[in-house]
Formats: sequence, C-alpha cells, structure tokens
Amino acid sequence: MPELRKDPVLGRWIIIAKERRKRPTDFVIEKPKVLGGFCPLCPGNENFTPPEVLAYRQNSPSKNNGPDWQVRVVPNKYPALIIEGDLGKEAEGLFDKMNGIGAHEVIIESPGHNDIFWNLPVGHISLIFKAFRDRLKDLEQDHRFHYVMVFKNLGKAAGASLEHSHSQLIALPVLPRMIVSELEGAKSYFQYKDRCLFCDIIRQEIQQGVRVVCQNELFITISPFAPRTPFEMWVLPKQHASDYCAQSDAQLTGLAEIMSQSLRRLDCCIPNVPYNFVLHTQPLRLGNIEHFHWHFEIVPTLTSIAGFEWGSGFYINPMPPEEAAQYLRESLDT
Amino acid sequence: MPELRKDPVLGRWIIIAKERRKRPTDFVIEKPKVLGGFCPLCPGNENFTPPEVLAYRQNSPSKNNGPDWQVRVVPNKYPALIIEGDLGKEAEGLFDKMNGIGAHEVIIESPGHNDIFWNLPVGHISLIFKAFRDRLKDLEQDHRFHYVMVFKNLGKAAGASLEHSHSQLIALPVLPRMIVSELEGAKSYFQYKDRCLFCDIIRQEIQQGVRVVCQNELFITISPFAPRTPFEMWVLPKQHASDYCAQSDAQLTGLAEIMSQSLRRLDCCIPNVPYNFVLHTQPLRLGNIEHFHWHFEIVPTLTSIAGFEWGSGFYINPMPPEEAAQYLRESLDT
Repeated sequence: MPELRKDPVLGRWIIIAKERRKRPTDFVIEKPKVLGGFCPLCPGNENFTPPEVLAYRQNSPSKNNGPDWQVRVVPNKYPALIIEGDLGKEAEGLFDKMNGIGAHEVIIESPGHNDIFWNLPVGHISLIFKAFRDRLKDLEQDHRFHYVMVFKNLGKAAGASLEHSHSQLIALPVLPRMIVSELEGAKSYFQYKDRCLFCDIIRQEIQQGVRVVCQNELFITISPFAPRTPFEMWVLPKQHASDYCAQSDAQLTGLAEIMSQSLRRLDCCIPNVPYNFVLHTQPLRLGNIEHFHWHFEIVPTLTSIAGFEWGSGFYINPMPPEEAAQYLRESLDT
Repeated sequence: MPELRKDPVLGRWIIIAKERRKRPTDFVIEKPKVLGGFCPLCPGNENFTPPEVLAYRQNSPSKNNGPDWQVRVVPNKYPALIIEGDLGKEAEGLFDKMNGIGAHEVIIESPGHNDIFWNLPVGHISLIFKAFRDRLKDLEQDHRFHYVMVFKNLGKAAGASLEHSHSQLIALPVLPRMIVSELEGAKSYFQYKDRCLFCDIIRQEIQQGVRVVCQNELFITISPFAPRTPFEMWVLPKQHASDYCAQSDAQLTGLAEIMSQSLRRLDCCIPNVPYNFVLHTQPLRLGNIEHFHWHFEIVPTLTSIAGFEWGSGFYINPMPPEEAAQYLRESLDT
C-alpha cells in the first residue's frame, strides 16, 4: 500500500510509492565526462572572473586576485540579478514588478579542478562554510536585501554548468515563497506548542532512530519523514539556532565533518549522483528567532519533475526514508 | 537589467533574466527516437491494461474493452495511489500520514500510436476533454477524494514513460498544497476587490495585448506575467467559471480548438519540445465559486530545476513573456 505523508513544516504532501521502490544499485548514473579545456575557475585564470569579493589564503581572508587561494568567492560573470541600482518597485496594472537587484556570487571551493567536495579535508570544507557565513554577514549590511540563498548544484542534471567544484549564492530583495511558507509553518507550530518544530523533529528522530543517517556531537543528518526524492537528507544543528551567521568556527568544523560524511555516504550508495544542497537559514537582520532552525537540505536528482508535480506541489517518491536511511547508514560500514 | 515579477495568484516571484535570453531556435530539441516494439496502449492490446473505466466508441461512451475505441481511459497498471481501502489517517509522533488511497488513470488519447495531440482533428481532441470531464464527474461521487489532478507529460524530459499519446489523472484524498495556495491567493484578492482575479487578468491582458498568444470566442491563451519557464502558457475560459466539470460539450469544442492551436504554435517555435499541461480546477463538490477560475497551464521543459529553485520556489526565466507571446503569435502567420 502506498503511503501519503505530510511535511510538518510546509504542509506539503508526498506519496511514498513503496511498490515502485528501487535499490540504490538500480539508479545507474553515468560518470560525468571530463571536459578538459579552459577553466575560468582554476588558479592562474583569476583575471577571467570578476575581481574576488572574498578569498582565503593560508586560512585568512584577503583580496589580491592572486593564484594562491584555497577558497575564492567572485561575482557570477552572468548574474541572474545585478548589484547596482535601486529597486524601482512599480505596478503594471494589477501586476507587481521591480528591478532585478541582487547579488549572484560563485564560491570556488578548491583550487584543484577535479576535487570532489566531500573528499576534501574537513579543515578545507570548513573554510567553504566559513566563506558562506562571511559573505552572508557582508551582504546583510545591504538593506536592499532580505534573503540570501546559498546552494550547490552538482552534476549537469542538477543544473551545474561548470565542472570545477563550486557553489553559489543569490541575495534577494524579497523573501522567497518557500522560505515564507517554512517560517509560517514553523511559527504556527511554535504558537501552538511553545517549542521549535525542528528541535521536536530532532528529538523524535533520535528516539525512533529509523531515519537517522549519522550524527556527531553538534549535528545530525536524517532522511526526512516526507522526502521529495529518494535519498533526500536534512542536516541540522542539534542545539537550537536560527541564524547560520551566528555559527562559530568550531561549529562550522562540525558541520564540515557531517556534510562530508553524509555526501560520502550518498556517493557510496549511488556513485556520481547529481544533487543540490541548499542552506535554509532565517531572513537577514532578524536576530535569533525561537521558531526557526537553520539546516541544509540535500536533494539528489533521481526523479523527474512532471505534470503532476508542477500542478500539485505533490511529489511521488519510490523510496521510503526509513530504507534510504538504512542504506546510507550501512554504506560506510561494509 | 533583469526584472523581478510576482505571480498575482501564488505570490511566487520569478526573475526575468533578459540578458540570458535565447531565440526559439537556440533551444534545439532532439527528435525523440521511435522505439517501436510492443505498445500496451495500442488497439488490439486492450487485455494488457486493466479493464477500461470509460471509452468513447463512435462518439458515445461504452465499456466493452474491444479495439474500436477513439479515446479510452484505464487504471494505471503501476498506480501511485490505489483505489481500494480506507484512509487510515494516523500520527507517528508529531508526523501525519495516511494510506495511499486514490485513483490513478491513463487517458489514451487516440488509437494511432504515432498521433500527436495537437495534430488530431478538433472533434477528436474535444472527446479527450470530455473524457477528463466525465471521469472528474464520476470520481466526484467518491467522498474519500478531495481533488483530481489532470495532466499530460509529453516527452521523456517531461516525465513521459510511454510513447503513445496519453494523459493521466490522479484523484487525491487531500488538497494539494499548490491548489490550496492558489485558492487562498485568489480568495484574498476577491475579498479585497470583489472581483475574480483571473477575470481581471483576462481583461488586462486583452487590453494590453502584448502577452496574448491567441483567442477564440470562448477561450484565451496568454503568456502569463510571471512565467516559470520560457514559453509557459495559460489557457482560460473568457467567461467566469470555476468548475471544469460544468463545461458543456460546445465549450469543450472551443477548448479543443484553442489548445490544439496553442500547442501547434509552441511546436512551430520549438519543434518536438517536451512539455506538461495541467488542469487547474476547483476542489471536488464545491459548486460554482466566485473567486476561482479554471484553466490549463502549459509548461515546456526548457530549463532545469536546480538548487536555487528547490530552495526558494523562485524561478529564473531567460525569456520575457512579451517576447514569447510575440514568437508564438507570429509562428503560424509566417
């Protein structure tokens, strides 16, 4: 019997279609072709990107556009939104529009062209997470922006257009609808229970155990109760925290460790799987809020978005999260 | 300068990234390979599908599972939801779930294996739309169901797994989140203005003209103000109507004409483009409501859903709808 499950945050329903389930080995992903040729993200080609807005050299920030960086952040050469100008909000009859003001940056995660995110040393991955935090803190100063979306697209099927390991951020002058819904869902739970919904989820997941993928002292990775895709994972800090910007270097090292381990487990289950990860943090300049809990969502690209999903916001997932979590738990033990 | 636009129904923002725009000829779609081999949807193979729930033979309904049908509706052999059983709603700690009860049917649109939807005679297409209506009316009798999602996936990239022209419907025991949001957005507008939002959109689109693709006496096709993808189209009845089930045969013939023409225009612009179309109608058993307006949304598969879209519900669209509408208008005039 298939099962309908409701995401407790968004109220989004999904169908767990167990009868259609596959084993991890049934998802065969072609190893991406190495394209070779010129890479604008490689060291030595710094002048082929816009000037850097942040770089870590020898673990400390600097901005000299030289080749000796470990992590480097540059404006996107083909930005979806542009940084200069005012919002120019206006109506067109009953419609609303504004200028496409925002920031669109690329976080170059490592100098090595063929480096794989989860395979980098934990100390290096923590630099990437520090770069996210430091860019968020800087963009927070710009009062035109209300939200910064930080995300990674890995693999062509997940929307990546460059091979060299990188992630991106987009600063937005409006709150995205998904974040509004998440905040509303979490707030309504808080008003009813006087507890953070995500803290309650973490407690229940630890108690039940069946959807826990891995944990360390500070973080936990779970297969969420109502996942959109097979092997979707959420990575959450165990202690309540709504603002990613407020995380210390030590906390980001814990994050680096768990993200590396979670993505390594995913790759063990389904080698070369394309995926997106997205940081869900609170809107800018809100201070710490009681009802939201920052986290990463990792969404593998294993099912297609078809008419039903477009129309309904409903997802059909052939893989129960309890089984996915078991595969992921066992992936590094065998 | 890119532009931010807000969908007036859902409050969803999208980015029109004009600087990244392409001409229709820049989207090169490979002609799908004809697979040949056995097709369970072809006439003569009726016993390879579950017994039909509706079929039109010589324009009138019948159910004898013989090969002389024009349009045939059968349960999906691998359904996402199943028809037998009770809902068994229950909690799992703070989570909510229920049995996957529903209906999942396949509308086989024509006996001809290689027939193309928009190229069928208008009289035949209207039979397909009658089949949608008649199945909706029948499923409405089952009080376990609250919504029926009717949709078509064309092409592998849009999620189709069978070559033979078909569409699908899924009857759901809950209201999908997207429909809830649409109803809420439309209701809030109605409460403020005492007018249907969609009727207002149609009036403004006819007055401005720039986003109108085509119209006939009863229907209009527009490029919506805030489209998610290049060449997205909405097809709406000009007269207010919230319930697709209440449409007469004559109205469904007008619908067949405009859908055929709209999809033909799309195919002229981008030959063999994969797409989804989805019927947005009101929830079951509501009677006629003042604030909702049924319509079809046609969404071509031309951009990929990446991390940013997953996280934000925001879409980046390189094609302004005013230009898309112009291409679509001119496609059949040249």
